Amino acid sequence: MALRTADQFLAALRDGRTVYYKGERVADVTAHPDLGRAARHCAIDYSFADDPHHRTLAVTEDEHGVTVNRFYRVPRTAGDLLKRREMIAETTRAGRALIVLIREIGTDFLPAAHIVTKAMQEQLEAPYHERLNAFWTHVAHNDLAMGLAQTDVKGDRSLGPTDQEHPDYYVRVVDRQKDGIVVRGAKAHTTNPIFADELIVLPCRALDERDAAYAVSFAVPCNAPGLKFIASPFSGGGTSPFDHPVSSRHKIADTLTVFDDVFVPWDRVFLCGETRYAGALALGFVEYHRFTAISYKLPLLDLMIGCAMLAAEANGIEKAAHVREKLSRLIAYRETVRALTVAAAHECTTKAGLAVPNTTVTNIAKQYFAENYHAMVQKVQDIAGGLLVTAPSEADWKNPETKHYVEQYLGGKKGFGSINRLKLFNLIRDYFASDFGGYHELLAIHAEGSLEAQKITILRGFDGGAVKAFAADCANLDPRS
Amino acid sequence: MALRTADQFLAALRDGRTVYYKGERVADVTAHPDLGRAARHCAIDYSFADDPHHRTLAVTEDEHGVTVNRFYRVPRTAGDLLKRREMIAETTRAGRALIVLIREIGTDFLPAAHIVTKAMQEQLEAPYHERLNAFWTHVAHNDLAMGLAQTDVKGDRSLGPTDQEHPDYYVRVVDRQKDGIVVRGAKAHTTNPIFADELIVLPCRALDERDAAYAVSFAVPCNAPGLKFIASPFSGGGTSPFDHPVSSRHKIADTLTVFDDVFVPWDRVFLCGETRYAGALALGFVEYHRFTAISYKLPLLDLMIGCAMLAAEANGIEKAAHVREKLSRLIAYRETVRALTVAAAHECTTKAGLAVPNTTVTNIAKQYFAENYHAMVQKVQDIAGGLLVTAPSEADWKNPETKHYVEQYLGGKKGFGSINRLKLFNLIRDYFASDFGGYHELLAIHAEGSLEAQKITILRGFDGGAVKAFAADCANLDPRS
Amino acid sequence: MALRTADQFLAALRDGRTVYYKGERVADVTAHPDLGRAARHCAIDYSFADDPHHRTLAVTEDEHGVTVNRFYRVPRTAGDLLKRREMIAETTRAGRALIVLIREIGTDFLPAAHIVTKAMQEQLEAPYHERLNAFWTHVAHNDLAMGLAQTDVKGDRSLGPTDQEHPDYYVRVVDRQKDGIVVRGAKAHTTNPIFADELIVLPCRALDERDAAYAVSFAVPCNAPGLKFIASPFSGGGTSPFDHPVSSRHKIADTLTVFDDVFVPWDRVFLCGETRYAGALALGFVEYHRFTAISYKLPLLDLMIGCAMLAAEANGIEKAAHVREKLSRLIAYRETVRALTVAAAHECTTKAGLAVPNTTVTNIAKQYFAENYHAMVQKVQDIAGGLLVTAPSEADWKNPETKHYVEQYLGGKKGFGSINRLKLFNLIRDYFASDFGGYHELLAIHAEGSLEAQKITILRGFDGGAVKAFAADCANLDPRS
Amino acid sequence: MALRTADQFLAALRDGRTVYYKGERVADVTAHPDLGRAARHCAIDYSFADDPHHRTLAVTEDEHGVTVNRFYRVPRTAGDLLKRREMIAETTRAGRALIVLIREIGTDFLPAAHIVTKAMQEQLEAPYHERLNAFWTHVAHNDLAMGLAQTDVKGDRSLGPTDQEHPDYYVRVVDRQKDGIVVRGAKAHTTNPIFADELIVLPCRALDERDAAYAVSFAVPCNAPGLKFIASPFSGGGTSPFDHPVSSRHKIADTLTVFDDVFVPWDRVFLCGETRYAGALALGFVEYHRFTAISYKLPLLDLMIGCAMLAAEANGIEKAAHVREKLSRLIAYRETVRALTVAAAHECTTKAGLAVPNTTVTNIAKQYFAENYHAMVQKVQDIAGGLLVTAPSEADWKNPETKHYVEQYLGGKKGFGSINRLKLFNLIRDYFASDFGGYHELLAIHAEGSLEAQKITILRGFDGGAVKAFAADCANLDPRS
Repeated sequence: MALRTADQFLAALRDGRTVYYKGERVADVTAHPDLGRAARHCAIDYSFADDPHHRTLAVTEDEHGVTVNRFYRVPRTAGDLLKRREMIAETTRAGRALIVLIREIGTDFLPAAHIVTKAMQEQLEAPYHERLNAFWTHVAHNDLAMGLAQTDVKGDRSLGPTDQEHPDYYVRVVDRQKDGIVVRGAKAHTTNPIFADELIVLPCRALDERDAAYAVSFAVPCNAPGLKFIASPFSGGGTSPFDHPVSSRHKIADTLTVFDDVFVPWDRVFLCGETRYAGALALGFVEYHRFTAISYKLPLLDLMIGCAMLAAEANGIEKAAHVREKLSRLIAYRETVRALTVAAAHECTTKAGLAVPNTTVTNIAKQYFAENYHAMVQKVQDIAGGLLVTAPSEADWKNPETKHYVEQYLGGKKGFGSINRLKLFNLIRDYFASDFGGYHELLAIHAEGSLEAQKITILRGFDGGAVKAFAADCANLDPRS
Repeated sequence: MALRTADQFLAALRDGRTVYYKGERVADVTAHPDLGRAARHCAIDYSFADDPHHRTLAVTEDEHGVTVNRFYRVPRTAGDLLKRREMIAETTRAGRALIVLIREIGTDFLPAAHIVTKAMQEQLEAPYHERLNAFWTHVAHNDLAMGLAQTDVKGDRSLGPTDQEHPDYYVRVVDRQKDGIVVRGAKAHTTNPIFADELIVLPCRALDERDAAYAVSFAVPCNAPGLKFIASPFSGGGTSPFDHPVSSRHKIADTLTVFDDVFVPWDRVFLCGETRYAGALALGFVEYHRFTAISYKLPLLDLMIGCAMLAAEANGIEKAAHVREKLSRLIAYRETVRALTVAAAHECTTKAGLAVPNTTVTNIAKQYFAENYHAMVQKVQDIAGGLLVTAPSEADWKNPETKHYVEQYLGGKKGFGSINRLKLFNLIRDYFASDFGGYHELLAIHAEGSLEAQKITILRGFDGGAVKAFAADCANLDPRS
Repeated sequence: MALRTADQFLAALRDGRTVYYKGERVADVTAHPDLGRAARHCAIDYSFADDPHHRTLAVTEDEHGVTVNRFYRVPRTAGDLLKRREMIAETTRAGRALIVLIREIGTDFLPAAHIVTKAMQEQLEAPYHERLNAFWTHVAHNDLAMGLAQTDVKGDRSLGPTDQEHPDYYVRVVDRQKDGIVVRGAKAHTTNPIFADELIVLPCRALDERDAAYAVSFAVPCNAPGLKFIASPFSGGGTSPFDHPVSSRHKIADTLTVFDDVFVPWDRVFLCGETRYAGALALGFVEYHRFTAISYKLPLLDLMIGCAMLAAEANGIEKAAHVREKLSRLIAYRETVRALTVAAAHECTTKAGLAVPNTTVTNIAKQYFAENYHAMVQKVQDIAGGLLVTAPSEADWKNPETKHYVEQYLGGKKGFGSINRLKLFNLIRDYFASDFGGYHELLAIHAEGSLEAQKITILRGFDGGAVKAFAADCANLDPRS
Repeated sequence: MALRTADQFLAALRDGRTVYYKGERVADVTAHPDLGRAARHCAIDYSFADDPHHRTLAVTEDEHGVTVNRFYRVPRTAGDLLKRREMIAETTRAGRALIVLIREIGTDFLPAAHIVTKAMQEQLEAPYHERLNAFWTHVAHNDLAMGLAQTDVKGDRSLGPTDQEHPDYYVRVVDRQKDGIVVRGAKAHTTNPIFADELIVLPCRALDERDAAYAVSFAVPCNAPGLKFIASPFSGGGTSPFDHPVSSRHKIADTLTVFDDVFVPWDRVFLCGETRYAGALALGFVEYHRFTAISYKLPLLDLMIGCAMLAAEANGIEKAAHVREKLSRLIAYRETVRALTVAAAHECTTKAGLAVPNTTVTNIAKQYFAENYHAMVQKVQDIAGGLLVTAPSEADWKNPETKHYVEQYLGGKKGFGSINRLKLFNLIRDYFASDFGGYHELLAIHAEGSLEAQKITILRGFDGGAVKAFAADCANLDPRS
């Protein structure tokens, strides 16, 4: 079976899906000035199978011997995880350090759901495991793109679903019918679903017994009736490739995703009322998803260092001790995240036959990355200097009355021309001091779970027994008292 | 003599000055869609004298008994410094935490130049002191706005002016004539000069004897022939007051300021060739200017805490321990900067009869503010959440097809309505995760000198003799060996 | 009335008090090898009145016109607070950066109790205010030393007094008699009570109504029957003045203080059962005591910088960029604590006629000092190097077989002799990498309240109303929704 | 060939070596009260081969098929590095988290010297490679302990060997004879050489051509004539196992190592005058040695967490949010160091047939460990509380007059008895707030190279080409300008 091309991927998005953007219904997301840019960014992922440089990495066989994209491969070994990591990093690099995220997140759900539905099969004789694997085969063999909606809008975050002022602050089942279920509610910050073929839904937290209606996981086509996407304009993006070298070409679109009584047939339902498994599914997904997170950060970290090094050279300060100190910190930041990701793969565990990246190490890598991100951005800004936000624009360079001034006065160290210097500063501002940069900061600390969520996971996952016993032995504690 | 009104201030800006913005010559900066916003922001400063709430603070008498704006008052005591600080904070607060900066920076120069020209008078019998004080009286009695250009474009930052590849990377005197001098070169990131009446120029570093042509300080009217401003569009600013509540109403405009052979009459020249005093003037200005810096930050710090507290309430997490910890840190951050500013005023020294804020404490306050700014922004983003960059826009709220969804699903804690919550997030994004936010980050670490500049000043200003003697005594060191 | 001399102070300690140390009853604390050192350290405080260099600072008049030590003066103004700060800093400096703490802590209690007992007088017509002021006069006019016991042993720290497994984990009243009360229980880490004339006791937390027996504050002579002190040996201290230049001469002694049914006459009781005022008294004391804390740190911070600067010179690395960076940080650390202390005094409030240092600023200063202390110690160790803990001892220098090697090979930069270098390293190890150094680390983070206690105080003391209103205004929040 | 027992190891130390301690010549280091403790600590390493629990790990075959201790095995693969790491961690754990360091450091030298001498063989036809491997076989087959002296006393650290005031501030060759060389000078902080059979010496820095006499590496028996050790008493250690549970049983002894014209036969010389290779040897050793460093830290990190967890429980605060936050940080600290070590092994490179741990990752792990050590100590102290340094001693518990008070009043949370609580605090003080704790702090930041050395290595080892190219591509830089 042939894998889809980028064009085939884009063509399939013209299917009548309900998308709103800046107050208007968008008939064709691929043709929209802003959203089209994001659609083409997603298409990068589909271009790999056709690209001789990437084909070996991107194309593999599944366990039925069918040719599939690397993303759909069932992870069985550390090697599988490392290859997946490479696939994520390379597509992100092709996206100029902006994560593509059109198959990553769906394929974080599939193995997690495989594990949890297997447990439900064994413990409850629940029918979800087969359905899930059939769905996995479906998306793999048809080379489909997947969005995923997990985070409910939540209302008062100190309360569970049932205690909210409004019953729909978490997505819930409002009707169980013979052929399927009807769901209502809304999920916040869903990434790129308007460019996906299928939308996967799962709970975002552990639930208690009163919350049965909220324990629901399923998949629906993105043009399902009642499914509505309101895309946010706040992820940045300029129009001039000179002033905004990356955000003018690459974009992510997050949506408020509304389920206005959407029907889901039973064979697309993976959880329905089993509250006890809601937390396991939510967390199991996150375990995979944070590994994806730390995999896709590498090109961004490369970009930070590259920008800082070039800016230091452009400004003639590359030998200053404080600049060298900052570069060393940036490198250590990158290498720490990178090496922890490698260790998380090497130290994977096996659940229901699947390789799961080491949870503690994965969470530490994500937490370390996120917590230090703003401080690292500061270093890049510090080395680049104030011109990031006070420089003339492309139009001033094109204006014959000012062109000469721009060219003459913005020169840096000998050998680094004015316009290259300006382009470099534009890249740095675009990525690290702008709407697009603000989006990245939020992505760092809120995507794939908050800083606090990671801290809790780190604490919970640690078995204190051995270290307490060691300390007790060193202290000669008397076990009887 | 009556002080000027905001309208009078604005009217005076239509004087033929040469301003470029986004590739076009701007005939009237007050009428331009973007720049006009910045002009009106500057006018806030002139509105205080007319405003009964602010008049007592804003209007005072100078030493000749003439009614002047508070900014022009000669600082003689800690009380004067504290009043000036209050004036700066209050105008900034009226500017919704964005510094107005239309008289602050000029009146940081005047006392510094008073002190240095006094020394030049005493040591060299140089004529600058009288000129400077005449200029001070001129701007005070005519209630004039001042821009100030200090930072040269610099080229290779590891080299001094004379060693640059291009002789004009620092502003220099190209001709000395009978009536005055002719200057050439360019200064980077000059704040708001296109809204000023007078532009003050001074060196940005210590110079050595070879650099005599670069040792120049003067003032010129902003419409002087040959003086050209290229305003940067990168300081942020949206158009919808809903989506961009502050940046749609308040703006700063920084320029690349080109001196294309500008003539300056002798009575406007305050330094010309005395290289030995260039560093003293540069540094003396900065001593006052960093006190201004830490004075105008207070409303911004208030805004950070206010945003974080409201966001915590809106999300229902105000009692979470980690949120309380973050709020405590934000408060400590604000209070540390604030209290250090107060101490810097109380511990002022006197030079040439003027009160100078304590240099070490001022630099520590500025350094502490700047170094921790990004980490504090992170805390605000962390409390607010991902909706900052994934929320629908004003247009989606106005669209009848989606209005209901926006209103229903973006509700937070009971009592905090959806639209207020959205407005709050819009404020936070506008200030802390956007083009405007990126501008503030750069302002934090590069305006009024870089982080490294402050560290050096802190080290240089400290007299190690006493503490070394104390340590030597505690160690019983033998002074003879 | 003449103030007591150091000898008179020491003589008064031979009064039969019950003191244990390292398993033995100590008959005379002034004659004991270890404790005597601590006693003489306390006597520093009494030496000031006789010392022409310090007399002006140390001797003043009280409000009755009686000559008293500065410590007993009733604080009415910012100036009084600044003078008290100077007195504390100078006695500490005479103690080679080790706080003397023989009157400081008692005179933190007196004004706090003055304020709280005044409120109790007004609200309950309670008799304590007069008693308290009589006691103040008593200690002032007799020039008495005071210890203070606040921290109960507490048992399970998550429980209040009444819920503990053992009723005596907090000091409590076990009998109310006609002439006075009988108290039982124990207080932990009481500083230097074995060198005091009077011991003051107060609660360490807010109490609820069930805890009435624990709401007790009083003063007793240190030789009161039933009062027993078990002094800890863990505050460091060596015997060789060469190897341990400070700790061989200066020491603090903390005790576990046991109240084995101690009788207290009514005129020494300042709180007895009024649970509602327990928290106010505990906190009120702490407000003054944290100001003392930040006052006595200055000589220690001086010592840190002095040690680091001398070590950099001794090693020949004083011009290395990373060393200069570290010195700049140490200076900023010192100046931040110092300037915040000055601001806390200038911004004092007045309660019951007394000046109270600004609580928020005081707590921030203490928190900032404590939180960063270990990191600053690291910098000093980093600059000094590994010889701190691998160098030969005094005995090796005195041994003729090895003397030459020690002298020859431990030389540093030209001009800094081997033995002076060794003495310097000994000082640094003594203060920053030893038993004595560990004591200082604990003192930093636990004395005068923990890091968390300060964070909570900072948050509680801040009035969020104004900043929330400012943010709401900037966001255009609709007050009706 | 049978491996030596612990007793055989100890017996061999009675060979007339010249050891001084606290001013006295020590005839038998194994019989000395303090040094004997350190000798027995070293013997732990020899006990493993006899211990059924450790034998499988500790005993292996070398490439000649001879039974040797694991330490002597030639590292060829990542697996060898991981096994070595385990060996180091387990002996350290048996040493109650204090590194044993009696073979680790020598076997860091051997592979590094193997690689460098191989290069010298190929490039200079120098004879060292064979000698080195013969020495490796000698120590392996005779199961010998090795000390290593690298850090010269250095004098003025800003100068190289030749420019020092004193020619012997770096160890140098003073005579080349027919049979060997004569060396003079001193090395600082040599760890445990007085318990080793052989002492290895190598340069501590790159040298230039003028420094030929200082380019010397060799091995000598520890009782060689002219070789003198002055052991430092400053590594901590108490006498009561109750008050000092670890330091009373475990100790390291560092020496000032004096070469008073020591003769070294040629077959023990591995470098002599080839200045160009001095830096490579110094750095090559350090590459291995830092991997050892991060391997032996794991038990210490376990101890930190174990102590913090037990202290939290003892005090009843284990559920407090700030305590949980601190525990999470401690765990993340441990896991980051641990996982980076694992990654450094997995990502090893091969040089001259030997596996070298990834240099960048190793240095980052070491730097991260060291830089954060003091802050982590602070967290442990913070959770434990002030009793660490104010508690009664063992003697007070044994004294019948005070025993009851100690037992009654030092109880914590129900189920955690007073004496166990006291023992736990004693362990924490012993390790983290004492002479022994200070030693550990210095060990963290100065052993195996300083913080700055690691930062430089991180920067130097990073190839910026790829990341600069990526940034240049994202910025669309024009390669022609």
